[in-house]
Amino acid sequence: MDSKQFREAAKQLVDYICDYHDNIRDRDVLPAVQPYFLEKQMPGSAPENGEPWTSVFNDIEKLIMPGMTHWHSPRFHAYFPTASSYPAILADMLSGALGCVGFSWISSPICTELEMSMMDWLGKMLHLPSEFLFSSHGKGGGVIQEAASESTLICMLAARSRAITKYSSSSSPKNKSPLNKLVAYCSTQAHSSVEKAALLSAVKIRSLDPDTNLSLRGETLERAIKDDREKGLIPFFVAASLGTTNSCAFDNIIEIGQICQKEDIWLHIDAAYAGSAFICPEYRHYLNGVDKADSFNMNPHKWLLVNSDCSALWVKNLNLISDAFNVDPVYLKYDKQGQIHDFRHLQIALGRRFRSLKMWFVFRLYGLNGLQQFIRKHIRLASEFKMMLQTDPRFQIEQPVVLGLVTFRLKGSDELNKKYAKAINDRRKIHISPCSINGRYTLRFVVCSRHTELEDIKFSWNEFKTVADQFPMENGFANH
Amino acid sequence: MDSKQFREAAKQLVDYICDYHDNIRDRDVLPAVQPYFLEKQMPGSAPENGEPWTSVFNDIEKLIMPGMTHWHSPRFHAYFPTASSYPAILADMLSGALGCVGFSWISSPICTELEMSMMDWLGKMLHLPSEFLFSSHGKGGGVIQEAASESTLICMLAARSRAITKYSSSSSPKNKSPLNKLVAYCSTQAHSSVEKAALLSAVKIRSLDPDTNLSLRGETLERAIKDDREKGLIPFFVAASLGTTNSCAFDNIIEIGQICQKEDIWLHIDAAYAGSAFICPEYRHYLNGVDKADSFNMNPHKWLLVNSDCSALWVKNLNLISDAFNVDPVYLKYDKQGQIHDFRHLQIALGRRFRSLKMWFVFRLYGLNGLQQFIRKHIRLASEFKMMLQTDPRFQIEQPVVLGLVTFRLKGSDELNKKYAKAINDRRKIHISPCSINGRYTLRFVVCSRHTELEDIKFSWNEFKTVADQFPMENGFANH
Repeated sequence: MDSKQFREAAKQLVDYICDYHDNIRDRDVLPAVQPYFLEKQMPGSAPENGEPWTSVFNDIEKLIMPGMTHWHSPRFHAYFPTASSYPAILADMLSGALGCVGFSWISSPICTELEMSMMDWLGKMLHLPSEFLFSSHGKGGGVIQEAASESTLICMLAARSRAITKYSSSSSPKNKSPLNKLVAYCSTQAHSSVEKAALLSAVKIRSLDPDTNLSLRGETLERAIKDDREKGLIPFFVAASLGTTNSCAFDNIIEIGQICQKEDIWLHIDAAYAGSAFICPEYRHYLNGVDKADSFNMNPHKWLLVNSDCSALWVKNLNLISDAFNVDPVYLKYDKQGQIHDFRHLQIALGRRFRSLKMWFVFRLYGLNGLQQFIRKHIRLASEFKMMLQTDPRFQIEQPVVLGLVTFRLKGSDELNKKYAKAINDRRKIHISPCSINGRYTLRFVVCSRHTELEDIKFSWNEFKTVADQFPMENGFANH
Repeated sequence: MDSKQFREAAKQLVDYICDYHDNIRDRDVLPAVQPYFLEKQMPGSAPENGEPWTSVFNDIEKLIMPGMTHWHSPRFHAYFPTASSYPAILADMLSGALGCVGFSWISSPICTELEMSMMDWLGKMLHLPSEFLFSSHGKGGGVIQEAASESTLICMLAARSRAITKYSSSSSPKNKSPLNKLVAYCSTQAHSSVEKAALLSAVKIRSLDPDTNLSLRGETLERAIKDDREKGLIPFFVAASLGTTNSCAFDNIIEIGQICQKEDIWLHIDAAYAGSAFICPEYRHYLNGVDKADSFNMNPHKWLLVNSDCSALWVKNLNLISDAFNVDPVYLKYDKQGQIHDFRHLQIALGRRFRSLKMWFVFRLYGLNGLQQFIRKHIRLASEFKMMLQTDPRFQIEQPVVLGLVTFRLKGSDELNKKYAKAINDRRKIHISPCSINGRYTLRFVVCSRHTELEDIKFSWNEFKTVADQFPMENGFANH
């Protein structure tokens, strides 16, 4: 495909993309396929000779669309949002065309420097303490990671390295690593990626019970640390969550931060979803206490209109990451090395794409006001849905609705709610995913799509009611 | 930005992208900037209100281009190639627009199934043993990772988990993990990511000396394993390289594979760059022995025209990865779970983009023949460069030229070659990166760009000669 053919094909695809988004409500949000549906329809191997663009283009509707779950449909209410916006798509087109690899400064100076600048812009939107920003010219700064899971893992590994250095050099006998004594903490409500990070880091992890608001409190942590120190263990890392996946609960980071500072424990704050809301002054107070954290992560690729992947991680002392990750072969050396960050030392992969371009495009084309309006609209729509639920006595709301997530149940057993969720998803008009709160099977409704309007919420609410009507209710609430 | 504005902006950007590639030779390959060049030119924070597209578009030339290292210029000869092609850019546009997250089958069935299909297509192009393919309906299959570094790390972690299970359950006392006895192996020529993986996995690694052809041999490995077993250590993982970064050397995987099988050690083969060449029958023999490997990795995003990120990892028993990585919260459960792979258990991140689309577009629009022609052209051009070098007595070629990499030196000291490389890069007409072979500072010339023609190789060779002319030579070769 030469540039002439690309010009034509790309413009045809641009029109297709616009039509897809403009008419996304015409498609069922969930596909009707069964596992291994594609195997029967696909050739077993690649073609010997190149095919024309039209064949590939036509197969988008024929082969891809029947198997799509439409995350950007206003009827998609599962998991958390994944961001998509036109400015971000434009930026990714440019990034793909430039195709640079930003592992060191010299490998593409603008790739490193625009990322530093954009992480500062976003850090300032969030009113992060200046220690987290490059512009303070200290040890802190931000770096784009692939995912919140990766951010957690990277910080845990850096904390592990710091702890091993500290505890190896003091009292323990030579060659005896304190690794098997290290223990990390999180809430039982923390995302599964924290457990996964501990598994991969080969350290112990303790999941602590939150309070009745599902918030992890300082005294719970303090008690666990005391217990563990008495057992000879070494507490080294706490992952606190702001906006949990189950219910969008907030750990008490002011209390937790004080304890971590006193105990010299790395505090990592994961606000993957909720973090985007903190650009609005009225939600910023949830972030109070971040000044005590060693690292903070939120995902613009969830709720800030920046396409995946763009997980924003700020660290107060980036040297602690690079110390844990630094390998420095001759084939990557260059003559200005050491004057500025080489991002390869701040991540797992060596290679890295030019991802800050999409932050730059989105932040400039929306502006801070545009981004705030977008967040506020989602929160308002979630609140509308909550009010709709409150009008129907068959439903109960489970946890306070703070941002774009509503947790609720049909009054009745877990079994009833499981069947209800399955019936909803089987109709494929809207899509929800469940969670477990206090051991109970609970439904989650999230406002996800950038296209969502009040009419869409009404459509989804109608679907919930319609399915409930068809359902034998327990507790006397059947088919009213 | 609405769809009408996006249609216009995207078409303007498509034209810009075409013009950029068509005229890429007009730009110096390296930028003239110094570290922190951007700070002075950028506003310190995001704009309050959205800006028009034209402002952003105009800033591409004004702010981005002056800081770019042009990886797709035919005058870029550093590191290894990073792939870019028009079909892959199209696929990424579509992927960005669909914006699905493929962590489980239900989260987007086509995202999982197209990836299975494409990994099989590519596996068949490489003539991988059927155990590595999904179509054999065994335990094997392929999965797209972000980078070769990540592939190595994932396999090392899986091997670690397997070894810990094996050695914990047999003789060792309870609660005493064999982790601190585990030892991995690679060649001194292996990529730095292997050392990094060991660092992150908290296991020992031994770098073994290769033979005079820079190939790691079986007997060297066998001796190391024997030594380490006598010391009470547990050998558990070998990372073999096909096409090293320094010199494109090939470890002897037939010998290594036999030993790994005998000793029950996980063999991972990293062919990040060279792997793409194995789709040509005349280079496939380098892969002989892969049947003894547990995992095999190559990067279509390096040399197979698929834009980053697309690192292809095949594993004979995917259960060993998911066993090491599996965490399974309620909010990710769905009713067909277990019938088909959930890719979230096969990687570090939870989220994953729809990356197989770009394999599909590239494989279909180029066809196997088109891809082979592309690879062969690069190899032929590297050979042309080698012949140019051979005409000039000031230069010596260091290692055999097998694929697209030529290693050479100016006859003389390391110091001379360092100055020479710096002088080449300081002129910014072409870009090379050095390496260290047998402790000697060596120059690397790689054919990288999809646009490269013989005239470009002649241009670069002329640049090498011009700079050499200006240089005081040692050994009587000065300024001839």
